[in-house]
Amino acid sequence: MKIVKTIAEVRTQVKEWRAQGLTVGLVPTMGYLHEGHASLIEASHRDNDRTVVSDFVNPMQFGPTEDLESYPRDLERDAQVVEEHGGDLIFNPEPEEMYHEGFSSFVDMTVLTQELCGLSRPIHFRGVCTVVSKLFNIVKPDRAYFGKKDAQQLAVIRHMVDDLNMDIEIVGCPIIREADGLAKSSRNTYLSPAERKAALVLSQAINLGKAMVGEGIKDAAEITGAMKAHINAEPLAKIDYVKIVDCATMQQIDVLDRPALCAIAVYIGKTRLIDNFFTEDV
Amino acid sequence: MKIVKTIAEVRTQVKEWRAQGLTVGLVPTMGYLHEGHASLIEASHRDNDRTVVSDFVNPMQFGPTEDLESYPRDLERDAQVVEEHGGDLIFNPEPEEMYHEGFSSFVDMTVLTQELCGLSRPIHFRGVCTVVSKLFNIVKPDRAYFGKKDAQQLAVIRHMVDDLNMDIEIVGCPIIREADGLAKSSRNTYLSPAERKAALVLSQAINLGKAMVGEGIKDAAEITGAMKAHINAEPLAKIDYVKIVDCATMQQIDVLDRPALCAIAVYIGKTRLIDNFFTEDV
Repeated sequence: MKIVKTIAEVRTQVKEWRAQGLTVGLVPTMGYLHEGHASLIEASHRDNDRTVVSDFVNPMQFGPTEDLESYPRDLERDAQVVEEHGGDLIFNPEPEEMYHEGFSSFVDMTVLTQELCGLSRPIHFRGVCTVVSKLFNIVKPDRAYFGKKDAQQLAVIRHMVDDLNMDIEIVGCPIIREADGLAKSSRNTYLSPAERKAALVLSQAINLGKAMVGEGIKDAAEITGAMKAHINAEPLAKIDYVKIVDCATMQQIDVLDRPALCAIAVYIGKTRLIDNFFTEDV
Repeated sequence: MKIVKTIAEVRTQVKEWRAQGLTVGLVPTMGYLHEGHASLIEASHRDNDRTVVSDFVNPMQFGPTEDLESYPRDLERDAQVVEEHGGDLIFNPEPEEMYHEGFSSFVDMTVLTQELCGLSRPIHFRGVCTVVSKLFNIVKPDRAYFGKKDAQQLAVIRHMVDDLNMDIEIVGCPIIREADGLAKSSRNTYLSPAERKAALVLSQAINLGKAMVGEGIKDAAEITGAMKAHINAEPLAKIDYVKIVDCATMQQIDVLDRPALCAIAVYIGKTRLIDNFFTEDV
C-alpha cells in the first residue's frame, strides 16, 4: 500500500495497472476513516483488481461558517484502515495540488441540489460535484463507491455521471452503524459524552419512521411529524430538516406513492449529523 | 468512414480502436464543415491513428434569441469533407441523445467567460463547456482540436481541462480565411452578396490592428479606436465589441505589455461574425 501526494503519481500508478489489464476502483473520502469507509474499500477490493482511496478534506464543499478547519484528520490511522481492508493506493493531496492559483471551473446541477442538505449548505454540492469530477478524471476508475448515509450526495453523483456521460459505475453501499444504532461518521468524534448519548435520537427517529412505513402509513406529514416529535424531546437536539422526498427528484412528497427517501439532519450541540432510510428498503 | 447517431456506438468503436492500441483525436464541430474544420481534421489525422468528428448543433450554447433553428446543416456534405481530410467516424446525435429528460448538470467557470463573447452571449460558454465535457467523456480522446478563430472558446476549454484534470491534450489551430481575407465560418452562408462584401471590414480591421502592433504601438485604445473607426465606416456593420485582452485572463488591458488577444465581434446585417489576432503572432 502506497501513499502519494501528487496527481502525476496517481496517474503513473494507474497507467501501470491499466497496462497490466487490471481494473481500478475508487473510494473518495475526506479521511478519518471509520467502518463505513472500510465497507466501501472492501466492496471496491471485492469488485476490482486495484483500489484507490482518495483522502482529501475538500475546501470547496465547506461553507464559510462550517467545520473545514476542525474537520478531524489522521493519515497514519487512515493508512492502516486502507491496508487492512484491501486498498492499494492512498491519494492524499494538499489543497494547492487540487486547486492551483486561478482555479475557477466547477460542475453543478440545477435540480437535486436545491433540497435537503442543499438548502442548509448552498455551495456544498457544487464542491462535491467538482472534486468528484476531478478525482474521476485523475483516477479514471471503472467503479466508484459512495455510502448511502450521504443519500443526496449519492443521487447527485449518479445524476452527474449520467448527464455528463462519465463512463464509471457508481456503487452505493449500506449505512454502517455503531452497536447502539448511531450512523458512523467522522463528525461523531466532535460529540461530548452527553451529546453522544443524545445523538441516538437520529437513529431512533429513523427506526420510528421505518416502523410507520412498515405499518403501511402513506401520509408523509404523519411520519415526519412523529419523527420530529421524538427528536424535539431531546434538549441537546435541534432539527435542521426531517423530510420525505422523491428518490429521483429529491423534491418533497405528501403521499408515499413512489420510491421515497426519508432524510434527516439534526444538530447535536454544534455538530450537524445526518441519517436516512429508503422506503424501498423497509 | 462511418456515421453513428448514438453514444453507445461511439463507445463501442473507440473501445475497439483502444484494444488495438490506436490513438484517437476528436474534432468537435457544429457541422456545415468548411476549410477551417478541414484543417482541424487534417491536424488530428496527422497526430492520431483515428479521428472522430462530432457534428452536433448544441442547443445549450445558443441564447433564446440566437440562430439555433436557422443554423445551417448538411450532413451529406459534411461526410464528404470528413472522408476527404482523413476523419474516421462522424458522431451526429439528435439533441435527445445528448440531453435526455431531466438533464440538469453543467460545467462552467467564474473567470474567462465574463468578457468578450461571454458579455453578449451570457449562457454560451456554459453550453460549450458542458457539451465539450460530455464529448470528452464519450470519446475519451488523446487530443482534441479547436480553431483559434474562437479564441475565447479555446482559452475557456484549456482552462477547464486544466482545472478539472481532464487528461486530454488541447490543440489550437490557425484561422483559415477566404482568398479576400474573411475568416471561414459556417455563419458566412447567412450573408447576402452586399453583406459578404461588407464583411471584409472584419479582416481589414484585424490587419489594421496587426499593422499598428507591428509598428510598436502599445496603447490599446489607440489600436481599438482605429479599428472601430474602420468598421464604423461600413454602413452594414454594427460593432458588438473590439477589445484587447490579457491572453491568460481575458480581462481588458490598457497597455500592450504582455501577451494579448485582440478580438472583435461585428454584426453584418443580422449575422454576428468574429475575428481576432494574438499580439504574439504579429
